[in-house]
Amino acid sequence: MSTSIRLAIDVMGGDFGPRCIIPAALRSLALYPSLHLILVGSADAIKPLLAAARYPADRITLLPASEQILADDPPARVLRGKPDASMRVALELVRDGRADGCLSAGNTGALMVLARSVVGMLEGVQRPAIMAALPVAGHDCHVLDLGANVDCSAEHLLEFALMGSAAVTQLTGNSSPRVGLLNIGHEVNKGTREVRAAAALLAASERLNYVGHVEGDGLFRGEADVVVCDGFVGNVLLKASEGVASYLQSEMRDALQASRLLRWMSPWVRRSLKPMRQRNDPDRHNGASLLGLRSVVIKSHGGAGEEALLAAIGKAVKACEANLPARIADQLRAAR
Amino acid sequence: MSTSIRLAIDVMGGDFGPRCIIPAALRSLALYPSLHLILVGSADAIKPLLAAARYPADRITLLPASEQILADDPPARVLRGKPDASMRVALELVRDGRADGCLSAGNTGALMVLARSVVGMLEGVQRPAIMAALPVAGHDCHVLDLGANVDCSAEHLLEFALMGSAAVTQLTGNSSPRVGLLNIGHEVNKGTREVRAAAALLAASERLNYVGHVEGDGLFRGEADVVVCDGFVGNVLLKASEGVASYLQSEMRDALQASRLLRWMSPWVRRSLKPMRQRNDPDRHNGASLLGLRSVVIKSHGGAGEEALLAAIGKAVKACEANLPARIADQLRAAR
Repeated sequence: MSTSIRLAIDVMGGDFGPRCIIPAALRSLALYPSLHLILVGSADAIKPLLAAARYPADRITLLPASEQILADDPPARVLRGKPDASMRVALELVRDGRADGCLSAGNTGALMVLARSVVGMLEGVQRPAIMAALPVAGHDCHVLDLGANVDCSAEHLLEFALMGSAAVTQLTGNSSPRVGLLNIGHEVNKGTREVRAAAALLAASERLNYVGHVEGDGLFRGEADVVVCDGFVGNVLLKASEGVASYLQSEMRDALQASRLLRWMSPWVRRSLKPMRQRNDPDRHNGASLLGLRSVVIKSHGGAGEEALLAAIGKAVKACEANLPARIADQLRAAR
Repeated sequence: MSTSIRLAIDVMGGDFGPRCIIPAALRSLALYPSLHLILVGSADAIKPLLAAARYPADRITLLPASEQILADDPPARVLRGKPDASMRVALELVRDGRADGCLSAGNTGALMVLARSVVGMLEGVQRPAIMAALPVAGHDCHVLDLGANVDCSAEHLLEFALMGSAAVTQLTGNSSPRVGLLNIGHEVNKGTREVRAAAALLAASERLNYVGHVEGDGLFRGEADVVVCDGFVGNVLLKASEGVASYLQSEMRDALQASRLLRWMSPWVRRSLKPMRQRNDPDRHNGASLLGLRSVVIKSHGGAGEEALLAAIGKAVKACEANLPARIADQLRAAR
């Protein structure tokens, strides 16, 4: 690994495209002095945004790409059409060793399919997995898979556990993260056939600090640092938790607005709630890791604003600095 | 249906047993003038609690049962051991027509197994399902299955949709509840094989107001009145949403306590938040329906206190008054 980090950013992805990604990218240069960015996308869209800004020109490279992956592009079109799509070009930079990692806020399914095809999988990995952190009591809980694989065998779930545990060690410094298996009860006979079989594999692995079954509520009580599940369940869990949080926040806002006294006091109320809001800010948790690939690939939420994109860039930098794919490969080799 | 409702209550189930269930039962008599209760359990535990209270003696029957289903009793022991368990005796009252419905706060798996065996399933029903209401934007969303069936075929999911739709019409008065299928995206090719096949069956059913795929966040935005999923996913969703809500409430409490001004203002803050707290109070939503059985069987949360048990009794009364099993049977017959 060189001392500087070269990150390729697909600036055409996401709901807001370059006008949100470019400002976040420029701000990230001030935060990470060793960072060099390669901005991939429409030169017509990027150049005016760069021209209007001040930035260290030697740390930014613009790489034009004439096409763009759309939110509803089917996998076949992603794989065989659009050879000059910004997402593909960014991944090719990683494949060719011209970038250490890649970040995109585009179509998740397309990113997964293209990354497998262009960057390739680590030796012996059967399925890549999407991992992200959720704020839970006292810390962050990393959950995987969040939607890359709807059907998973016990062996896939073991692989996710090994990859997730290695990744969390690198990303958080926790040398022995507690790994839980998402289930619907603590008893050994609970869950689907795959989950019961996975429980036996996880318990038998010497590479894991396995803490057993974790339920949906236990996850948010902080019972584990890594929680493993198939991508269907993980995606429902992730979106439901976002849904509940945003519903309760709007209920709270309405309740505080309904009282004339509290409305008048809102500057003080807001100030008191600020640390809690910051701790649980979804923006701060933006940036999911695609694990099992040969290089660092980070997916930002499509609806991410500038702050959220800045957080995702931070995750990408950390993953590159830790050389996450190599550490995951070590873990998988040691577990065999 | 007689004009009075006879409800059998297993008073030995739940974390707090008779000392919580008996007071709730006695209070329910004042709320539901047509209600008659049959309290099933240890006479030694029940009699002192009744002796200390004032109540209309002609509306309470005590039926002694010498045994009790425990939280960790395996299904075989539940089915073949303990012939005089309070849960079993309460279900036998329903089977024999001596009660219109049954309520228990005991072991969910045991209640499901015993209810199938003692009360029996409606004709043509393949799987019973557990349904409960979650508070979402603007209304309640009923979700099923919440844990009775970890593996479900497309036909099972269709059956859940038909049963849930009929039940919600009876319980809420909504003559055409919007039915959604829980999935991880809106596109038709999303989800597991079973979910994709279920989507086709639900879309083809003339008995359903089917609104398509609903994601975890869409559920909490109120996109459907009934959401259908397999019991593994439903149980994770239910517990995760409880987990997030309770985590955010404790964060909020800590934040308000940390400010001296807001601590001093806590009576006003509390008053402002009260309507929201009441609307989203898990106690108010206690009482899951076991659908697909020949009679009304309601499961209370094991950790339910007096208020929550009162809510569950209310659900049981409503389900008995509507003769829910007969309406579900009508719906299933019409859909064939």
